[in-house]
Amino acid sequence: MFFASDNTSGVHPRILDALVRANDGYPPSYGDDAIMARVRDRLRETFEAPEAAVYLVATGTAANSLILGTLAQPYETIFCTPMSHINEDEANAPEFYTGGAKLTLTGTEDAKMSAATLRKAIEAEGTRGVHGPKRGPVSLTNVTERGTVYDLDELGRIGTVAKEFGLPLHLDGARFGNAVEALGCTAAEMSWKAGVDAVSFGGTKSGCMGVEAVVFFDPARAEEFEFRRKRGGHLFSKHRYLSAQMAAYLEDDLWRSLAAQANAACQRLAQALKQMPDVRFSHDTPANIIFASWPRGLHEKLKAAGAHYHLYSGSETGPEDEMQEARLVTSWSTSEEDVDRFLEVMRH
Amino acid sequence: MFFASDNTSGVHPRILDALVRANDGYPPSYGDDAIMARVRDRLRETFEAPEAAVYLVATGTAANSLILGTLAQPYETIFCTPMSHINEDEANAPEFYTGGAKLTLTGTEDAKMSAATLRKAIEAEGTRGVHGPKRGPVSLTNVTERGTVYDLDELGRIGTVAKEFGLPLHLDGARFGNAVEALGCTAAEMSWKAGVDAVSFGGTKSGCMGVEAVVFFDPARAEEFEFRRKRGGHLFSKHRYLSAQMAAYLEDDLWRSLAAQANAACQRLAQALKQMPDVRFSHDTPANIIFASWPRGLHEKLKAAGAHYHLYSGSETGPEDEMQEARLVTSWSTSEEDVDRFLEVMRH
Amino acid sequence: MFFASDNTSGVHPRILDALVRANDGYPPSYGDDAIMARVRDRLRETFEAPEAAVYLVATGTAANSLILGTLAQPYETIFCTPMSHINEDEANAPEFYTGGAKLTLTGTEDAKMSAATLRKAIEAEGTRGVHGPKRGPVSLTNVTERGTVYDLDELGRIGTVAKEFGLPLHLDGARFGNAVEALGCTAAEMSWKAGVDAVSFGGTKSGCMGVEAVVFFDPARAEEFEFRRKRGGHLFSKHRYLSAQMAAYLEDDLWRSLAAQANAACQRLAQALKQMPDVRFSHDTPANIIFASWPRGLHEKLKAAGAHYHLYSGSETGPEDEMQEARLVTSWSTSEEDVDRFLEVMRH
Amino acid sequence: MFFASDNTSGVHPRILDALVRANDGYPPSYGDDAIMARVRDRLRETFEAPEAAVYLVATGTAANSLILGTLAQPYETIFCTPMSHINEDEANAPEFYTGGAKLTLTGTEDAKMSAATLRKAIEAEGTRGVHGPKRGPVSLTNVTERGTVYDLDELGRIGTVAKEFGLPLHLDGARFGNAVEALGCTAAEMSWKAGVDAVSFGGTKSGCMGVEAVVFFDPARAEEFEFRRKRGGHLFSKHRYLSAQMAAYLEDDLWRSLAAQANAACQRLAQALKQMPDVRFSHDTPANIIFASWPRGLHEKLKAAGAHYHLYSGSETGPEDEMQEARLVTSWSTSEEDVDRFLEVMRH
Repeated sequence: MFFASDNTSGVHPRILDALVRANDGYPPSYGDDAIMARVRDRLRETFEAPEAAVYLVATGTAANSLILGTLAQPYETIFCTPMSHINEDEANAPEFYTGGAKLTLTGTEDAKMSAATLRKAIEAEGTRGVHGPKRGPVSLTNVTERGTVYDLDELGRIGTVAKEFGLPLHLDGARFGNAVEALGCTAAEMSWKAGVDAVSFGGTKSGCMGVEAVVFFDPARAEEFEFRRKRGGHLFSKHRYLSAQMAAYLEDDLWRSLAAQANAACQRLAQALKQMPDVRFSHDTPANIIFASWPRGLHEKLKAAGAHYHLYSGSETGPEDEMQEARLVTSWSTSEEDVDRFLEVMRH
Repeated sequence: MFFASDNTSGVHPRILDALVRANDGYPPSYGDDAIMARVRDRLRETFEAPEAAVYLVATGTAANSLILGTLAQPYETIFCTPMSHINEDEANAPEFYTGGAKLTLTGTEDAKMSAATLRKAIEAEGTRGVHGPKRGPVSLTNVTERGTVYDLDELGRIGTVAKEFGLPLHLDGARFGNAVEALGCTAAEMSWKAGVDAVSFGGTKSGCMGVEAVVFFDPARAEEFEFRRKRGGHLFSKHRYLSAQMAAYLEDDLWRSLAAQANAACQRLAQALKQMPDVRFSHDTPANIIFASWPRGLHEKLKAAGAHYHLYSGSETGPEDEMQEARLVTSWSTSEEDVDRFLEVMRH
Repeated sequence: MFFASDNTSGVHPRILDALVRANDGYPPSYGDDAIMARVRDRLRETFEAPEAAVYLVATGTAANSLILGTLAQPYETIFCTPMSHINEDEANAPEFYTGGAKLTLTGTEDAKMSAATLRKAIEAEGTRGVHGPKRGPVSLTNVTERGTVYDLDELGRIGTVAKEFGLPLHLDGARFGNAVEALGCTAAEMSWKAGVDAVSFGGTKSGCMGVEAVVFFDPARAEEFEFRRKRGGHLFSKHRYLSAQMAAYLEDDLWRSLAAQANAACQRLAQALKQMPDVRFSHDTPANIIFASWPRGLHEKLKAAGAHYHLYSGSETGPEDEMQEARLVTSWSTSEEDVDRFLEVMRH
Repeated sequence: MFFASDNTSGVHPRILDALVRANDGYPPSYGDDAIMARVRDRLRETFEAPEAAVYLVATGTAANSLILGTLAQPYETIFCTPMSHINEDEANAPEFYTGGAKLTLTGTEDAKMSAATLRKAIEAEGTRGVHGPKRGPVSLTNVTERGTVYDLDELGRIGTVAKEFGLPLHLDGARFGNAVEALGCTAAEMSWKAGVDAVSFGGTKSGCMGVEAVVFFDPARAEEFEFRRKRGGHLFSKHRYLSAQMAAYLEDDLWRSLAAQANAACQRLAQALKQMPDVRFSHDTPANIIFASWPRGLHEKLKAAGAHYHLYSGSETGPEDEMQEARLVTSWSTSEEDVDRFLEVMRH
């Protein structure tokens, strides 16, 4: 019963197989391998963006920070939510890769900024001339860090505000597939068609070993990105092993199937939990993450039965009936059996 | 006939196998996996350093830059050779990770600094008070970027100079195994026993997919390193796949066997080349890299026959008998057949 | 009627005179002048800190950023208020000088953090291991950017929290004298006796031409600060002209007298404004800054009469009786006549 | 007998007077003062560059580093000489302000790069794709740090090479006036007409208290520079005191007269020294700096007589007749009496 994170799951057999097959021969290093040429084509098709500049790195923090380093000047500020991964979970990596840009935190509802809270934050940062930071990129995450999903209207309105102020828009797509599946839309619709300028397209959390694609819809960013990636130590010599993962992940839209599996497991879990009188949901759960609370006693029973997940609130000890908030994350490899066993424990 | 770089070779079967085996289950992320615990023990044994702080990253540039970022202040200068990888081939990554430290280039012979050229460089950088940079770490590479090897006496004398000035000593060990095998010494002798404070212990060039160990002999550096690694985007969520590579690489000293194979292939090649009247060696070749020159006509014949390697000098076109310098690198997977075929082409 | 900022006022005659007197001869550069030796002694006396490391720079942004760069690691976060100068008015200078540290904004009341809001912010930043930033310095401003003043109890409680978590405490003292005069305390009481580790002691806003002292109560910070100051371009070659300003500013506690004059002018203004039915104060005004609102019509009358000050809220145009918030700042050179003329205009 | 540095000299009476006169009233802060408007016009006239973006800062390190930070990307390298101030005497300020760019040192003759040594350095840095740094700005100093002067032909040829490779050209003009006077040319001829893109126009070493002008001939750089200046802590609130210095310095070409005086004192000194059999010149001395050697015994006599200057070589103690190299710098305030007294001591 493993719901701690989608990054504790393994590598999907088709991706592992691709790695083994990539082990033959002596292809050129540093991204000049033939598999990468195919990945480039396939990513451009996936995003319906024939001119896009496309790169691979191995971690999500690298993908996001390198994009922000390319989009932002050091004297600018990046607009994001307080719970965004770039603010909370990257140990100042965005500040590092931008050379010291600031993060301005927007108001949120359900862990999402809105066109209105974004506009308010932007307007507040443009009143002090050279004394304040200059307005820089807008960055959002879909699926959000609380499991909610921006729909295409919400994204489009945010994209419109960013464009109005001439600010680039970055999408942290660590769970890009899960959001696309939740919305039933295309990769293009959830990115450039909504005004996104650059996206990190996550593979690691969804069946890959460690690979994220970086997509700039404006190829003018390409050269700068390449130098910044190398300078960050994120250009792999044996690049074919990143290429092979991504190639298999894209083939026959495996990335969508895996995301759909993860989402389905989450829905099975969520629907059952919603029937339970003791369970209170913090947010809607359209993708593969649940934030919900139930009494401490139940948590203890689950842990004892071998369930793995994180607690987000509450002290170490306390009364049995005290409500504590849990985060449950499903992945491509979450089985119905595990979900049902978890529910079983909760019911008894 | 692939002699372009050891990083065009594949993953050794035992290491690939370890990756496949690591694919089971839901171990904790970010280095808390059980395999990493074993890797820690095994690395400390290998280096006879029970207190060492030990980490894994995926690229050599990350390993070197993160070490230098931890050892150097931004207002300091790092002493290294002009041809060092950190100076020539990391696109300012050391400057980035140190927050803007400088690199002071020492005099060299055979691509090596000596205790004397190091002392001269150090002394020249200590005369301007706060106007110049402060003296910072010394950094050297063994095997050097030209294929030569510092012996233990040379290392020890450099370590003594560094200690005399109170400067930390970093060893870029991208080809650590090849140097140890060339010297017939232990990992400890080539590192802390010679005064080295931190080493990057390379796996990628020698049969791994993408993993380098970082070893600090003083564990006081540990916490800072961990924050810097995360902030650089170099902490892997699915860390078990780095751990698995390194575990297999260390088991039964596979890292030494693979280095020995690469060195042997190089010696076979070098000894035959030395018999050829048209071939001039630029340096001694004790490890797995040869720098040597022969006439353009021969180069053309080799390329036509399918030999892969880099040219280091000479214009695109010119007379047939013009000497051009080649770099040949052997790896764990270089076969005697490939070596012999290469020599065959040269002879006829 | 000049109430726009204390930095629009001129240089006090005694300080200007000191500059003229310093113009003789060929003293050593870069802080080795004899006047600076006296300044060092006098600053240490003023702060009752015989071991303090003491430096001069020319701007407040330089003083604060260099202190924070010395106290904070790039992977740390600095705790400050949302309206602090380092957050709002230094165009990412703290991020620049720390190499990319983050600013964590505390809750505030009357533009002041409290021991409780500080503790809450610190606790929230210590839960994510290497994924979040590490906890770094606490930074506060006295007089605050809204004109309120931390009293010694408030400071002491904040100092206690900082110490409990092992975090250094920085005091932005751009208006240090105004706060000391408002509290009727000593420089030592408002700094190290309350737990402050480093302070910027402002001269520019209070009768100097452009000089701020940096005081580290722990002299171990000295060498690092000196390199960082030079590297920031803030070490003056003709340093004697900084020394001369500070020497005159300290002599016979001129800094206290000038602050007292500015505060007195502010009290005269505030007391009269408080009698006016249309005026609403945003905060208490114990030092030399007033934030207060009155109807747009009155603002227009004042501007027409030649009053200079900043508006902090309200649209360009609107109804005559709409309330708009003004910031009024008095300085050492504000005359009673100017204050009275301003009040006169308001009354009629 | 003060020949240690031009920065030990005082402020010229006309400039000091301008500072006193600027002390009236309450002008706007941060460069919006009326004097600065005049300075802008006058600098544009001086440089015959009506569109130039023009700024003031207080130190030469600030001027150079801010220009380089604006011209260079962090993944680029700056081409300069080994003895350039930005390499030797700014404690990594260029690396800091560029966010970690590298400095590539060119070959030199008489402390000057040539079009040929520059081209060689540029070509060597363009062979490694994203592995090396990208080629960035060219930076030179006129008068050089050894007292030699690039003539207009030399500058023009360097400018042509920079343009050929599309690299911006920076001129460190700490002693701009001395070079212009040595060449008998105009400010425009020594800057944009020779291909220079940005210049720091020094005042501090030549009669000002602490002010340098930054001139970008392409005004598109303006906004970025303004944010970078503020973020570096180099935007002065009481900016009028920088403006006043520069206004007086430019009025009636005072900057040229003061430079001419310094150069004349140097020529008087040099011509007499050249007659002395024991004196060997290291370089030509067309401006206000002499590097020359004479026996230790003579140095001791001079020091005993109260002469101030720096020794550039030689051990602390040694034989009386050992040659030691001195640096002598004259300034606007060097008197003929002082020169003659110095020569007198040497002769007897």
